[in-house]
Amino acid sequence: MQTLSSYLSGQWQAGQGEGTALENAVNGEIVARCSTEGLDLGAAVRHAREVGGPALRKMTFTERATMLKGLSAAIHEIREELIEMGSRNGGNTRGDAKFDIDGATGTLAAYASFGKRLGDRPFLADGDGQQLGRTARFWGQHIRVPRRGVAVHINAFNFPAWGMMEKAACALLAGVPVIEKPGGATALIAWRVAQVVVESGLVPEGAFQFLCGSAGDLLSHLNGQDCVAFTGSAATGAKIRGDANLVRHNVRVNIEADSINAAVLAPDVATDAEAYGLFIGNVGLDMCQKAGQKCTAVRRIFVPADRVEEVKTDLIAELGRYPLGEPTEKTTRLGPVAHSGQHADVVAGIQRLSEIADVVHGGAESPRDGAFVSATLLVARDADANILHELEVFGPVATIVPYDGTATRAIELVNRGDGGLVVSVYSNDANWSEEFVLGVAPFHGRIWVGSDRMAEQALPPGMVLPNLVHGGPGRAGGGEELGALRGLDFYTQRTAIQGFKSFVDGTFGPETEGE
Amino acid sequence: MQTLSSYLSGQWQAGQGEGTALENAVNGEIVARCSTEGLDLGAAVRHAREVGGPALRKMTFTERATMLKGLSAAIHEIREELIEMGSRNGGNTRGDAKFDIDGATGTLAAYASFGKRLGDRPFLADGDGQQLGRTARFWGQHIRVPRRGVAVHINAFNFPAWGMMEKAACALLAGVPVIEKPGGATALIAWRVAQVVVESGLVPEGAFQFLCGSAGDLLSHLNGQDCVAFTGSAATGAKIRGDANLVRHNVRVNIEADSINAAVLAPDVATDAEAYGLFIGNVGLDMCQKAGQKCTAVRRIFVPADRVEEVKTDLIAELGRYPLGEPTEKTTRLGPVAHSGQHADVVAGIQRLSEIADVVHGGAESPRDGAFVSATLLVARDADANILHELEVFGPVATIVPYDGTATRAIELVNRGDGGLVVSVYSNDANWSEEFVLGVAPFHGRIWVGSDRMAEQALPPGMVLPNLVHGGPGRAGGGEELGALRGLDFYTQRTAIQGFKSFVDGTFGPETEGE
Repeated sequence: MQTLSSYLSGQWQAGQGEGTALENAVNGEIVARCSTEGLDLGAAVRHAREVGGPALRKMTFTERATMLKGLSAAIHEIREELIEMGSRNGGNTRGDAKFDIDGATGTLAAYASFGKRLGDRPFLADGDGQQLGRTARFWGQHIRVPRRGVAVHINAFNFPAWGMMEKAACALLAGVPVIEKPGGATALIAWRVAQVVVESGLVPEGAFQFLCGSAGDLLSHLNGQDCVAFTGSAATGAKIRGDANLVRHNVRVNIEADSINAAVLAPDVATDAEAYGLFIGNVGLDMCQKAGQKCTAVRRIFVPADRVEEVKTDLIAELGRYPLGEPTEKTTRLGPVAHSGQHADVVAGIQRLSEIADVVHGGAESPRDGAFVSATLLVARDADANILHELEVFGPVATIVPYDGTATRAIELVNRGDGGLVVSVYSNDANWSEEFVLGVAPFHGRIWVGSDRMAEQALPPGMVLPNLVHGGPGRAGGGEELGALRGLDFYTQRTAIQGFKSFVDGTFGPETEGE
Repeated sequence: MQTLSSYLSGQWQAGQGEGTALENAVNGEIVARCSTEGLDLGAAVRHAREVGGPALRKMTFTERATMLKGLSAAIHEIREELIEMGSRNGGNTRGDAKFDIDGATGTLAAYASFGKRLGDRPFLADGDGQQLGRTARFWGQHIRVPRRGVAVHINAFNFPAWGMMEKAACALLAGVPVIEKPGGATALIAWRVAQVVVESGLVPEGAFQFLCGSAGDLLSHLNGQDCVAFTGSAATGAKIRGDANLVRHNVRVNIEADSINAAVLAPDVATDAEAYGLFIGNVGLDMCQKAGQKCTAVRRIFVPADRVEEVKTDLIAELGRYPLGEPTEKTTRLGPVAHSGQHADVVAGIQRLSEIADVVHGGAESPRDGAFVSATLLVARDADANILHELEVFGPVATIVPYDGTATRAIELVNRGDGGLVVSVYSNDANWSEEFVLGVAPFHGRIWVGSDRMAEQALPPGMVLPNLVHGGPGRAGGGEELGALRGLDFYTQRTAIQGFKSFVDGTFGPETEGE
């Protein structure tokens, strides 16, 4: 059996003891193990600060962009190998694995392209300069510089490639070294990607480290120049945010946690509208892709009360297009959830939802051995039941919630989620859509508006794009990632510079066209 | 004796019990008392959310800007009354009180002027739109909308007027109601300003509440749409950041805490250079203005070793221009510190600094009865002593620290402060300055570069300007305020909107010129 080691302080090192077991979700066999016990994490933090950071900051933005482009290509080269690993550890169908891997390489490529335009100065100008005195002689300019610490990334199990590399792309482009910790249970792909990153020789030593297993005492070594970005459960998120050392040193923390995402069908969308087909298609995709284990997947489907029967019928038909089976079988479009622990959680979640909703398709009973869950559709008996708006069942499970067709009520119900990553709405009525968007905006990081005229070109709402922010307030963690260059803010310090205009503007002002 | 009440849930209410005593710093007499015991803070939070927020959000940005302008004028009208109060509670000289009060009205006026340009839509466009699909048909746009909660502002004792109104200006312009809690010991000015704000009738009911005394259980009522901005000690800052309820709900927290600010004299600045005069003048001002009780005041004065004698002599002469005395006396330019508790802290701080530095002017002995401290200048015996870089003595106290004249060493020593609000440097050498600026930028929110050519127009480094960010990483709290419209980010939710271009861009895109 394989032992996955960590890449710390310039060498691959295996921890002591049993550590975490990586399962094959189909049959429960242990595929590999990883442990970080006994590894010197303080040394890794120092290595990042003293070796990785300085080397990375010596590179220009253009050079760092070229590095990201190279990493994208290097990972893409082993795409087939990674797809196979995804089926062996994590239960990914071929399509699921591609979504994760191509997400990683695509985000790296996107940040390479954003970075190419940033020039060769060791800082970024932030906005335009400003006159501070009676005349322009006394001048001010904000800049952003890379922070001098390490970025600790604690990633979730569902996107071992994308989750790691979208975070790394932003930090590395900003000039900040990373320590990447994958979700232990599905670390196989992350470990192989980390190998490729290290072996590529593209990233300066110390700028990319990989901690395969428990985070141990890592957080206790951080200070005010460091930062922690976490994706995972609200409970772990709160533990990190409240960590005594992080609090004491005002360490920056970004959290992406639970999100009870919603899709809303507006009453104007007729059965034969393109937007209706888009709605059914996207909900089905969200439920079955990655077996519903996407932080952006829809959990609550709001449907005008008089359309519930129709939507139920059409969604059940749509779910029929996702045959459940072994991830390696070509026909399979719905694989198992990632591992047996997840399976137990999802089954329990379906049972809890059943208390306030009727199961109209699938259900808690396992369709076969292994971590398989049937695509499960429920219809809520009470739209206001708390559990609907509070419980994220992280599997191929969603609940239709009837509402009265008004934007006001849709807003009220959607916002009961108390902060989400994404909400999608399907409407060709611009007034209804605008009212809805403004009503839910304070509670969401992203709002996806489906309509007939964009249907043909639209990427689905569950897909996180590098140019738009990803994150949400409240229950969703209060964090923000990506959003093109916005994603670099977390890794940089914004500083105002005041002084004589020709010095401040000449040295730190925005670059003019043609430079 | 006066009892200061709180304005909560639409009425002025006094708490039970003794509460906090407000001293006259000159003679220790109790000027007033305030208590919040028994007040219903949960009701105040609901009042802000349910009454204040909706009323404020109904106003356009232009209307909110006009409101801020009106508040500025209303506070300015009672300027003389406030100046008198500042001498009676807080120990402010006339100049000190003006600095606080004019800072409040100036910041309100500045935000009124920023706000006038924001238009009449209920959101702000954030950056340009972006093509997301194969063609421009699928489009994305980020916007910012006011959060639906309340902004709790926990202010420091040193700027009762400015500290409260700079925070309130950003929140109110953003469309978020505030609960303002002043530092208890100097709450008299804040209370009178709050009275004016309420009586002006300019702010909708519920959008401005005032909690005069302890914060009680206020934080326990907050959730993911609320935010807390705190200015004060690192210890209290850590308590707020780690508060279990704030952590659990991912409540946004902004902290501005200790800062061991530095001023650096570069070796190129000759005695007869204008920049040298500026350096001596600004350090003297920082030490004596507000009796050194500014979070931006210089604590460490880095001087090339061969210039220490000269600087010492000139600074002592400069301090002679700040006669100590009763705040109400016209000739007085150095008043007492705010109250007896502060006095004890500052005296203890001087004694601790004396362990590693020689007192060359002033000292720990009280020059007269009351909370008076002599302007105290020290010269460090060991530039690397930890205490120099870790202890903020919040009074008219600063220490000259010799260094070797290289930018490298200056950067190393300045950054030992582990995160600061502002660092000032005096140099006419653009290369030296640039190296220094880039070396200290990751650790500072603001860098002030003094030189001959801006000397005549420069506002001093200790002055926080509304157009530049205020805050610093690490020890300084990791927060950020002001910076013109950047100051609204904390109170707004950034949301990405995706959909058909003509809808997304037409409804949410940046306003074009002439609209």
